[in-house]
Amino acid sequence: MENKKVGLIGCGPSGMAIIAAFNEAKKNGIAIPKIVCFEKQDQVGGLWNLTWRTGFEENGEPVHGSMYQHLWSNSPKEAYELSDYTFDDHFKKPVPSYPPRTLLEEYIKERFNKCRNGQEILLNTVVRNVAQSGDQFAISYENLISKECQDDIFDYVIVATGHFSYPSLPYYPGIEKYCGRVLHSHDFRNAEEFKDQIVVIVGSGYSGEDIAIQLHKYGVKQCFVSHRSPPKQFKWPENIKEVPLIEKFEKDLIHFKDGSTTTADAVIFCTGYKHHFPFMEDKLRLKDATNIFYPNHLYKGILLEGNTNVIYLGMQNKGYTFTMFEAQAWFARDVILGQIKLPDDKVKLNEDIKKWYDMQFLVTCETDVVHFQRDYIANLIEHTGHGSQEDNTKIGEMFKEHMKNRDAGILTYRDKCFTSNYTGTVAAEPKISWIHCLDDSKEMFLNNV
Amino acid sequence: MENKKVGLIGCGPSGMAIIAAFNEAKKNGIAIPKIVCFEKQDQVGGLWNLTWRTGFEENGEPVHGSMYQHLWSNSPKEAYELSDYTFDDHFKKPVPSYPPRTLLEEYIKERFNKCRNGQEILLNTVVRNVAQSGDQFAISYENLISKECQDDIFDYVIVATGHFSYPSLPYYPGIEKYCGRVLHSHDFRNAEEFKDQIVVIVGSGYSGEDIAIQLHKYGVKQCFVSHRSPPKQFKWPENIKEVPLIEKFEKDLIHFKDGSTTTADAVIFCTGYKHHFPFMEDKLRLKDATNIFYPNHLYKGILLEGNTNVIYLGMQNKGYTFTMFEAQAWFARDVILGQIKLPDDKVKLNEDIKKWYDMQFLVTCETDVVHFQRDYIANLIEHTGHGSQEDNTKIGEMFKEHMKNRDAGILTYRDKCFTSNYTGTVAAEPKISWIHCLDDSKEMFLNNV
Repeated sequence: MENKKVGLIGCGPSGMAIIAAFNEAKKNGIAIPKIVCFEKQDQVGGLWNLTWRTGFEENGEPVHGSMYQHLWSNSPKEAYELSDYTFDDHFKKPVPSYPPRTLLEEYIKERFNKCRNGQEILLNTVVRNVAQSGDQFAISYENLISKECQDDIFDYVIVATGHFSYPSLPYYPGIEKYCGRVLHSHDFRNAEEFKDQIVVIVGSGYSGEDIAIQLHKYGVKQCFVSHRSPPKQFKWPENIKEVPLIEKFEKDLIHFKDGSTTTADAVIFCTGYKHHFPFMEDKLRLKDATNIFYPNHLYKGILLEGNTNVIYLGMQNKGYTFTMFEAQAWFARDVILGQIKLPDDKVKLNEDIKKWYDMQFLVTCETDVVHFQRDYIANLIEHTGHGSQEDNTKIGEMFKEHMKNRDAGILTYRDKCFTSNYTGTVAAEPKISWIHCLDDSKEMFLNNV
Repeated sequence: MENKKVGLIGCGPSGMAIIAAFNEAKKNGIAIPKIVCFEKQDQVGGLWNLTWRTGFEENGEPVHGSMYQHLWSNSPKEAYELSDYTFDDHFKKPVPSYPPRTLLEEYIKERFNKCRNGQEILLNTVVRNVAQSGDQFAISYENLISKECQDDIFDYVIVATGHFSYPSLPYYPGIEKYCGRVLHSHDFRNAEEFKDQIVVIVGSGYSGEDIAIQLHKYGVKQCFVSHRSPPKQFKWPENIKEVPLIEKFEKDLIHFKDGSTTTADAVIFCTGYKHHFPFMEDKLRLKDATNIFYPNHLYKGILLEGNTNVIYLGMQNKGYTFTMFEAQAWFARDVILGQIKLPDDKVKLNEDIKKWYDMQFLVTCETDVVHFQRDYIANLIEHTGHGSQEDNTKIGEMFKEHMKNRDAGILTYRDKCFTSNYTGTVAAEPKISWIHCLDDSKEMFLNNV
């Protein structure tokens, strides 16, 4: 095993989870492969790193992250707490359930430091090409500082580059002559930019919803949320209004499908992202993947159909993230360590993919989503034995409660408290509620109880 | 020659010029190589195509263009008129000297149609990798629609992908917590977005200057142009003011080096671009290139030192564009056709590079720039015999007159008229002057005389 090599692309939450999982095996005396981890950013943390840049980094690479100033978690930390590094370990005292982004960035980085075990990460290193080479894989990569390019051979490739970096943005008639500001949520950096403005948000997923209430929190004049779904059950504040899809743009006017119109200072497209892996050779590339709950062509949601030595992590749409990455990482690890045997029979493998792929289409409401993800993680746990089914079930229940709270109060759900699965600690109630809390520093968060 | 293959990357003005140059040889009965042209956009025209998108195209590729709505040429059309397709050929009558972008896009596309001669262009096709393969080059490319990847072998590679696509944007202390809008001129799309706003522009190159007067034209409240150069001699309108460089950002405040401050709705960084060729193998990549008048490592400004079968077009900072591309394309063509012999002696070749590279540093004023470019083009013409030295000299004089006009009236220079080198036609005086002309349609332009 020591002479096997894993090329790990990306050191965000999924990449970190893989390194943590292998180190856990090593601690237990199990021989692990050599992992070479390529990270194009200048630090680990993936999407959780905030950048003020949009479009391109200073080195010419696409900006990876889609986070913005003043972003807070939109699900309770207890639903994605990691058993080997609890929030009590990190904060040393009970804190509210919904932390600002800054503290989650700190949490996963600190956890990674604890379990990194000397694992080297090639920072500022972008993978340019991955190609099959016999039974192995040739990875070409470039150091973005020295501009030097190198090649190396690997037995396994793990793609952990995420799928929230390449915006999906449909065309609308007339948009090319529209005279207001047009941006994708990928480039949204600060709600304060839109103070006193009229803003149209397109899309009602997590981004659309959260950017709408951020705009409200920071003084937008009027915000329209344009989407195709049935009306949300949220009690929106007075200056947020749901409207139908946009039909067309006309210089300074936006026409909706119901014939109504508005002028606007900006249109923010919260229309999601593309799974985009230009560095993967054609036949190793995950294809047709969209932001669904079970992408096609991936056995157990991670191993590439046709070449299971190519592993994609975290490619699903998801409710709770770190918890799922953990379960996926352990499964991937155990396959590589030979502790999990894959079906010899290709037909069986494909049947399993099809079963899960089809099952997701039975999901019709948010509760179904939680059950589907719970069952998916439960299935991984069955194979790895890592994590408890009971905790997994509890996380599902937690998530359902969270969604109930959100439906009941889109501006107040972040003030609710949950209980840790691992420490039994009940989260502290925030003194200043989220809607009034304009400070997202650690000092504030620790003292806001 | 017919069994030689040229891989041409990019079909903007430079790529088009290469195709036109080879077709001219073919028309004269000379055998030419097979040209395979890769163009990642869905049409030819390169930077001259306007897109409303910023950051990424719908297919996940970086947006190539940096143009904006209501952009007009900032130099007289007579300085970049092409001898084989004059503006009289195109417009059929005298028109003003400074056309809107829309009409220049039309002009170069129409000219390309005239000389394309059936040459196929692989549209929506991005080059992922270029690597040396013996004496030849392996190019891997992907069709962005079908997602299919292919490889092919070439004897020559011509890189004509431009260098105005990857923003250069320095870091300033505090910018990560700044609460106004931050953008690079690459993402500037419409001055109307900034109506009634306070805007700080950083940089005083062509982009900074032009965006400032665009903002003025479309109703900006106040515009600060922040730069390090000596004060411009322009008679700026009252709401444009030059200020020193930015020292730091402080939430909603911008501090300049002289201690003065301002709040602003937006900061537009007109800080230039990076030469960025991630698809070129290390040793084939043009390195250390910045926006100077003679990039290093390029013989005659185009052939790569160390491997002259790799050709880079249009990598210079330039005053007049099409005219220079034309001269470069003919030189490149004649080298490939064997009509121009390169020095056998590497030392001589490198000496020539060094001579021109060093000479650019004697340039101290805008007049020097014109003379340097005139002399560079004259040197290419000497070798190719294509184009007249007299016309080239006249273009230089035209450009100097243009710059004098610009210095005398930054808001009025686009109303001046020049005379065509090739037809003797004097440009028509515009009825409505540029500053008052908000319509950039063809109909308006043809009738505004």
